[in-house]
Amino acid sequence: MTTDVPGDDFHVFDTTLRDGAQREGINLSVADKLAIARHLDDFGVGYIEGGWPGANPRDTEFFRRAQAEIDFRAARLVAFGATRRAGVRAADDPQVVALADAGAPVVTIVAKSHDRHVELALRTTLDENLRMVHDTVAYLRERGRRVFVDCEHFFDGYQANASYAKDVVRTAHDAGAEVVVLCDTNGGMLPAQVQAVVRTVAGDTGARIGIHAQDDTGCAVANTLAAVDAGATHVQCTANGYGERVGNANLFPVVAALQLKYGRKVVPDAALAEMTRISHAIAEVVNLTPSTHQPYVGTSAFAHKAGLHASAIKVDPDLYQHIDPERVGNSMRMLVSDMAGRASVELKGRELGYDLTGDRELVGRVVERVKAQELRGYSYEAADASFELLLRDEVRGGDAPRFFRVESWRAIVEERPDGTHANEATVRLWAKGERVVATGEGNGPVNALDRALRAGLEPVFPELARLELVDYKVRILAGTHGTESTTRVLVSTGDGSSEWSTVGVAENVIAASWQALDDAYTFGLLRAGLTPEQ
Amino acid sequence: MTTDVPGDDFHVFDTTLRDGAQREGINLSVADKLAIARHLDDFGVGYIEGGWPGANPRDTEFFRRAQAEIDFRAARLVAFGATRRAGVRAADDPQVVALADAGAPVVTIVAKSHDRHVELALRTTLDENLRMVHDTVAYLRERGRRVFVDCEHFFDGYQANASYAKDVVRTAHDAGAEVVVLCDTNGGMLPAQVQAVVRTVAGDTGARIGIHAQDDTGCAVANTLAAVDAGATHVQCTANGYGERVGNANLFPVVAALQLKYGRKVVPDAALAEMTRISHAIAEVVNLTPSTHQPYVGTSAFAHKAGLHASAIKVDPDLYQHIDPERVGNSMRMLVSDMAGRASVELKGRELGYDLTGDRELVGRVVERVKAQELRGYSYEAADASFELLLRDEVRGGDAPRFFRVESWRAIVEERPDGTHANEATVRLWAKGERVVATGEGNGPVNALDRALRAGLEPVFPELARLELVDYKVRILAGTHGTESTTRVLVSTGDGSSEWSTVGVAENVIAASWQALDDAYTFGLLRAGLTPEQ
Repeated sequence: MTTDVPGDDFHVFDTTLRDGAQREGINLSVADKLAIARHLDDFGVGYIEGGWPGANPRDTEFFRRAQAEIDFRAARLVAFGATRRAGVRAADDPQVVALADAGAPVVTIVAKSHDRHVELALRTTLDENLRMVHDTVAYLRERGRRVFVDCEHFFDGYQANASYAKDVVRTAHDAGAEVVVLCDTNGGMLPAQVQAVVRTVAGDTGARIGIHAQDDTGCAVANTLAAVDAGATHVQCTANGYGERVGNANLFPVVAALQLKYGRKVVPDAALAEMTRISHAIAEVVNLTPSTHQPYVGTSAFAHKAGLHASAIKVDPDLYQHIDPERVGNSMRMLVSDMAGRASVELKGRELGYDLTGDRELVGRVVERVKAQELRGYSYEAADASFELLLRDEVRGGDAPRFFRVESWRAIVEERPDGTHANEATVRLWAKGERVVATGEGNGPVNALDRALRAGLEPVFPELARLELVDYKVRILAGTHGTESTTRVLVSTGDGSSEWSTVGVAENVIAASWQALDDAYTFGLLRAGLTPEQ
Repeated sequence: MTTDVPGDDFHVFDTTLRDGAQREGINLSVADKLAIARHLDDFGVGYIEGGWPGANPRDTEFFRRAQAEIDFRAARLVAFGATRRAGVRAADDPQVVALADAGAPVVTIVAKSHDRHVELALRTTLDENLRMVHDTVAYLRERGRRVFVDCEHFFDGYQANASYAKDVVRTAHDAGAEVVVLCDTNGGMLPAQVQAVVRTVAGDTGARIGIHAQDDTGCAVANTLAAVDAGATHVQCTANGYGERVGNANLFPVVAALQLKYGRKVVPDAALAEMTRISHAIAEVVNLTPSTHQPYVGTSAFAHKAGLHASAIKVDPDLYQHIDPERVGNSMRMLVSDMAGRASVELKGRELGYDLTGDRELVGRVVERVKAQELRGYSYEAADASFELLLRDEVRGGDAPRFFRVESWRAIVEERPDGTHANEATVRLWAKGERVVATGEGNGPVNALDRALRAGLEPVFPELARLELVDYKVRILAGTHGTESTTRVLVSTGDGSSEWSTVGVAENVIAASWQALDDAYTFGLLRAGLTPEQ
């Protein structure tokens, strides 16, 4: 443990690996879980709930490997499970025993606290449920575990039968639970309700209170903070707000609010400055596109589009941002868009190293060209390199920088009678005065075209060997008539030290990909320091 | 106006067309704006801010056409503009005159209320800014307009200089502004701050207070409700939370909370029951994929995945949802996923009309097959028809329903030297005992394959003529090595009365699309009542 780890008087408790994995579209392997646990530890969370050992073989394996393979800096591993079954001793319930056996220092058990759920879902009596809570906590304490208790459906239960809901909290507390977590399992609460209930329950029971909020009203972050305002000192969240239905309270805006708005140090400052990277890295592992509009960490979170703002931002950026984006590892961006106008193009040009302020006519031409291209479906907001090529083209008076000229290309995809596929492409192009015809095969038509293009160009431009396509995105633009839509392709290319993005738009995905590849290699050659032909 | 329109004592004020259009990636034509205005009126909002007439020709045209072409049921049109320039009379400022000339019954003017913004962005004195507010409101009142005043950067301004910020509110109120709207322009506020400031400002100034929240802390909905708790009676929101950076307060969860949680009738109940449809329709107009995880209206908002929940939901669905989804036009969904297990497959089967409860072995086979397919990249959560084909296959003991057998296919995409594209596809298949070879051309390889398949099948199955591809989505699954990723394609197909979705996964987009098309036509023929060959 480093000395920069905040103390245990406030818990940042992450449940991405358990509750977050309930999100539609997420399916985590053990390797995924280990990768996410490392990212969460890097972020400095205090507790990582890893899953339900015993109930799920994948989770059992995760606990075994996490303890063997990860040297956690700050985080403690937490095993999740349920109270014992009705009518058996905790020590005789294999599910409870497996929780202690998992080896995690902390166990969270979920307890019913809503009287109707006890009767209809658990099918036992209210008294037996209290004994189940007591016995399970007591058994796990005897086995040397720290115990947190999640009171499921607490807020709905409190509305239905406040006295019983509080009895569950008291029972858990008396049996030795360190924290009793009030869960808004169905996510229907609003901050004022959460605050009032947390304050009352904390006062009436004396338990240390935690909060677990779901986002069904769009208020999970605010509900979490409202609970903290009322005295909760343990917040359960998930990375990027992943979770069932709408999702859980999003770890990142909760931590940012606590640290930057409340001034409460809950993770190391240096880790907070990695927040954007960590958020995107976790999205990569779960294989979901990061939300561009996520608070603090989205690529749009500090992006400015309006011409009105763009001109004032030149005066003082802090007048137009609620925090310095570098504190969370993000940065201000100026968007090139027809709404933005001249000021944005000038700022964007400056970002790219072109001083355009003196040339009103040039800026005007760039704005007009961007408008026309946007009407055709292009978007330069995420394609800096294509925008820079456009800008260079206008700076040179319409003479686009070119290293090669394509005469024609062809891609063939075939499914053979045995079900295997063949993908073949041919390109015909001119480079350094020579006509080149090259062929490539690949696992798809775009890959085959990419290989044909490289096969043709690499003998002439050996610099291309260092370039790698690192991301490829397809967006169907006017999806109302199926395959007859326009297609926009974004390609990210890297040379080992930096990355750039290019865009192509066409009536089909192959032609759009081709344009983006053409820009990607042209930009890569410029970046490698080569001088274009003309 | 219908009698079901709520009164004017509480304003639901939509600014999708003005502030929402600042979102990265949105670019609205006049036709788009008219379409969105109709949807917002259907939803029952009281005020629709349409843009800045005079400053933007597109907005000027919108106001002209909206008043000529739309017969609003409940909504009043609002023109947006700024206070007069420093040092001129309001009546001599063309921007202010254009606001009155636009013909909208209501005008919102934006006023600076943060002292540093007055000095650094407006470059005028604090006193002149107050005169600018007063004169502009007074002029527009004289011209017969109702006037709302947006106090830009109010909350930051209040922290910097509370006395001046309140002077701006008082000045606007005294000059005849009906509502003074406190704007969290940079979006950095949290609910407790908003509530305290709104309460103080309302008490100290006597003005009717509105709230305009941006979502940079992830609390815009909660901030809006906190302002209402403190006495605000005018809420500014945007459909789906569109807006600059992270976005604005989302109209839909704000209205749903007011109506369903606060019991305050702000739109007709029948309109609330259209909320999901209206949210998705507006997303369609702005050409953004609707967020699947949006509160209340997302396709995941009432979707249940966990096996634990799925079995309890059979007992009583209301134990597991915070509202009846039908009140907002959404519905509960059971997801087919390897986490869900048997209970979900049974529920999903029942949803599709198959009673599987008696056949444990069959359910087990389906669960295993779904798991194996998900490992390969398939996802049935959004591909009901492909899941139903899988289910039918297992019900028939591995004999998939088939109407045709494909021998092979080939697609060719070519860019000719003149820059035009040719797309041609050939399919070889067997249907009703005959071998068919058919060719199709299209605007892309998938479209060409689709046409070749139809050309081959329609003579045998005339029922296919009614089918249309209505949506087509591409997802790159493992995007770390560019074009060498796996591709998942989702296709939606309609027959005029219903729609179904199918999925294909392959190493390239063409092969994946082909699978999804194959399923789409097979399912369409089943739905048309035909009996498969085997």
